Amino acid sequence: MNTVLTPATTSELVDQAARRAHEAYLISAAQTPATRASWLAALAEALRANADELVTLAAADTNLTEPRLRGELVRSAFQLDLFAEEIRTGVALDATIDHADPHWGMGPRPDIRRVNVPLGVVGVFGASNFPFAFSVMGGDSASALAAGCAVLHKIHAGHKNLALRTAEIVITALDRAGAPEGLFAVVDGREAAVALVEHPLVKAIGFTGSTAGGRALFDIAAGRPEPIPFFGELGSINPVFVLPQAWRHRSTEILEGYASSFTMGMGQFCTKPGVLFVPDEGQDDRISDSLTRALAKVQLDKLLTPGLHESYVAARDEVAGLEGVHVVVPGSDEETPAPTVLAVDAEQVVRTPDVLHREMFGPATILVRYQDPAQLPALAELMEGQLTATVHGDEDDDIALLVKTLTGKAGRVLFNGWPTGVTVSYAQHHGGPYPATTAPSATSVGTASIGRFMRPVAYQDLPETVLPPALQEANPWGIARRVDGTFVPAALAGAQR
Amino acid sequence: MNTVLTPATTSELVDQAARRAHEAYLISAAQTPATRASWLAALAEALRANADELVTLAAADTNLTEPRLRGELVRSAFQLDLFAEEIRTGVALDATIDHADPHWGMGPRPDIRRVNVPLGVVGVFGASNFPFAFSVMGGDSASALAAGCAVLHKIHAGHKNLALRTAEIVITALDRAGAPEGLFAVVDGREAAVALVEHPLVKAIGFTGSTAGGRALFDIAAGRPEPIPFFGELGSINPVFVLPQAWRHRSTEILEGYASSFTMGMGQFCTKPGVLFVPDEGQDDRISDSLTRALAKVQLDKLLTPGLHESYVAARDEVAGLEGVHVVVPGSDEETPAPTVLAVDAEQVVRTPDVLHREMFGPATILVRYQDPAQLPALAELMEGQLTATVHGDEDDDIALLVKTLTGKAGRVLFNGWPTGVTVSYAQHHGGPYPATTAPSATSVGTASIGRFMRPVAYQDLPETVLPPALQEANPWGIARRVDGTFVPAALAGAQR
Repeated sequence: MNTVLTPATTSELVDQAARRAHEAYLISAAQTPATRASWLAALAEALRANADELVTLAAADTNLTEPRLRGELVRSAFQLDLFAEEIRTGVALDATIDHADPHWGMGPRPDIRRVNVPLGVVGVFGASNFPFAFSVMGGDSASALAAGCAVLHKIHAGHKNLALRTAEIVITALDRAGAPEGLFAVVDGREAAVALVEHPLVKAIGFTGSTAGGRALFDIAAGRPEPIPFFGELGSINPVFVLPQAWRHRSTEILEGYASSFTMGMGQFCTKPGVLFVPDEGQDDRISDSLTRALAKVQLDKLLTPGLHESYVAARDEVAGLEGVHVVVPGSDEETPAPTVLAVDAEQVVRTPDVLHREMFGPATILVRYQDPAQLPALAELMEGQLTATVHGDEDDDIALLVKTLTGKAGRVLFNGWPTGVTVSYAQHHGGPYPATTAPSATSVGTASIGRFMRPVAYQDLPETVLPPALQEANPWGIARRVDGTFVPAALAGAQR
Repeated sequence: MNTVLTPATTSELVDQAARRAHEAYLISAAQTPATRASWLAALAEALRANADELVTLAAADTNLTEPRLRGELVRSAFQLDLFAEEIRTGVALDATIDHADPHWGMGPRPDIRRVNVPLGVVGVFGASNFPFAFSVMGGDSASALAAGCAVLHKIHAGHKNLALRTAEIVITALDRAGAPEGLFAVVDGREAAVALVEHPLVKAIGFTGSTAGGRALFDIAAGRPEPIPFFGELGSINPVFVLPQAWRHRSTEILEGYASSFTMGMGQFCTKPGVLFVPDEGQDDRISDSLTRALAKVQLDKLLTPGLHESYVAARDEVAGLEGVHVVVPGSDEETPAPTVLAVDAEQVVRTPDVLHREMFGPATILVRYQDPAQLPALAELMEGQLTATVHGDEDDDIALLVKTLTGKAGRVLFNGWPTGVTVSYAQHHGGPYPATTAPSATSVGTASIGRFMRPVAYQDLPETVLPPALQEANPWGIARRVDGTFVPAALAGAQR
């Protein structure tokens, strides 16, 4: 690979990139959604066209398997196409028109029309564990570009070769598609990371990573002279609650699904089920046997980086050393570590809930054995904010109160499934209360993620010719709008698509 | 007045109120929108039924005129009714359903359904300048209750008698309407204010006030172990740009409108036009005469509090003392201060843009005289984030580039009008980039303000019987939803209204 791309590594270079990106954003913001959609489509096409090379680079950088990486690339390209379609329909604009009304209840109402506009330059931090889906042209970048923003991407050190080559492909594709120069650029290293979050022209941050690293950057973003939104996805334990009937009817199947889910990507998923609540019915040997059998099928790989390996082993050993925790499946510390399963009683968890707050980023998890399903809502309350929470139940299991409790704790609540695997769709929400994220109302997956990088502007009594097309009476783009309180669907015929 | 209400004034009392409020929120969150709507309607009715007493109290506390206060009360009651209607239609829920799809482009899609749920307990800080519209049962409280949250309201010291009596009426009305005890309560004083922002059960803050006070509380909210969203409306200068043709055709009319707008409420509006850009055509005497004549009609009153009077005079004198600033209409320092108009040349502003960043909260404003309308976008770029920006132009005036620039600076852009007067409607946006607000995507006025106090939760493969009604296949509430990407309007017939 002969890369010619040089990321910005100093404050001065970040400043230059931010100024270019700001100019590019001003151009992008003035385009039609159809034009921006064509850029996204070109990016999807470029990812697919270069899949073989990119997957090879990714495998070399990350130890992840080829099928997994290929799936991730397909997902990233699909996401770009879906976002292109979403902005063509105008949904992200949330165009709302209130005509002047002399009889409005609080006094005469002027003509007010509101539309979402892009925020400006967005800083996006690549994640270690998703070299495509949450990195150079992952969800944060795709949604920021869809919104009309420019993107400065902070490369993750764990897959630098891949990142540089992906960025080259992205920049070339954008250029060929007619996007303004500087709309996408990369920065690298700690100095550049801090300069990115501090730069006055940077108006929002998208981040996926550790709680410690994310919180440090959040604090910088919140402490700026002009604070900016920080959409950080930090840590999540993703509890799974198995109810008595489900456990009685299909404990082996559940343990197999659990083993498969918590070891997916060697346990390096933000949605890894880190704790499984099961009834305490004293079948320790059977559980241990089932898990051992299921885990024997897992293809072991190295963790993403030596640093992650080290912190994984430390976190796992720390949890294993907590009071009342014992080992069900020991696992190993090897370079390709065998998965570990721990266990603890619910009574102990009530005394020392810390065991529910320690993320073990890697192939380890803990069982919590409860006496009575009536305990489960109170146990759920001991959890911090989560990306996901899952319930396994059968017909006779009463899950209503537990689901209500989990609604207060998590961004996504699943039934009889596993939290790994996050589809990109209209209804998806990948977020949750802190520390799952720093912005509990925002999602980093799905079409709703585009809105994070926009802000509304209302226009009062503006002449039709100066109004943004989305708000013009004639609706030249044929988009869905809310008019005088009533939703008017998109006029697909006649729409500029 | 025999008030029996005692606000929480210590950390311990705030803790008790927060726990009660949290329990009340859990009950409120479980109600149908129709039930919550009935509580809001009861509040609107209670405000109207007690209007005479409340307006009398408000006038005594604030020096504001009776017609102004009566209008504000009507506005607040209307707002509650509008929000009641909005939640009945389900718009704020943003209910989105993606059915399972085995052929979804990135791989089989599970059934995913998303709905907005309330955040929890919300802390609301009363504003000095709107004793009804941005105080006890103003926009922040109304939108938080509409969202399903509980409200702890921090009383503003400037109208404490009114606040306590309003709170009594609110609590009584909620009780009679069947709302849970503790859903609304008041706190008072600095210790309680800090305890409110720091309390773990408080999940968001709504604030309207000064930049210094707001930023201090924002910093506390962002620095918590669990940071929470802080919806703060801080300072705004609200620039108005008069283009040459408009100036030539109707400068007297414009100056009259300006004089009326910047002195409304004695200049103590967050949308007061604090700077007017006009062509420099050397008619100093005529401008001074027009303004003096127009300002002679203004009914002078005391400012809201002695403290505000003092800081107003200090801010005005500071701006008057800046380089190149001269006095057009001197005004006065009396207890009922006569309005002041200053002026400065655009060239000076380019050299020392600070003059555009100092809010004079009270009846003072500054003219900026420009040579060439081509300068205006660059002058606009010197402004910080604004709640509003206004353009006055006639047919021959080219305003396109200026409007585009102001879109990047302000939350609301007006044409041939005045920014004071903010209607409550569907399309309204009362917000803007920092320091106008601390959350540039949020509005504190209009139906869109409800969404600030909600967060989305997605449910994956949940049984129909456990799904929230808003997401059940049968759509029992008959609300508008997005289904598989397509908007399905509300089925008003059969809806639970």
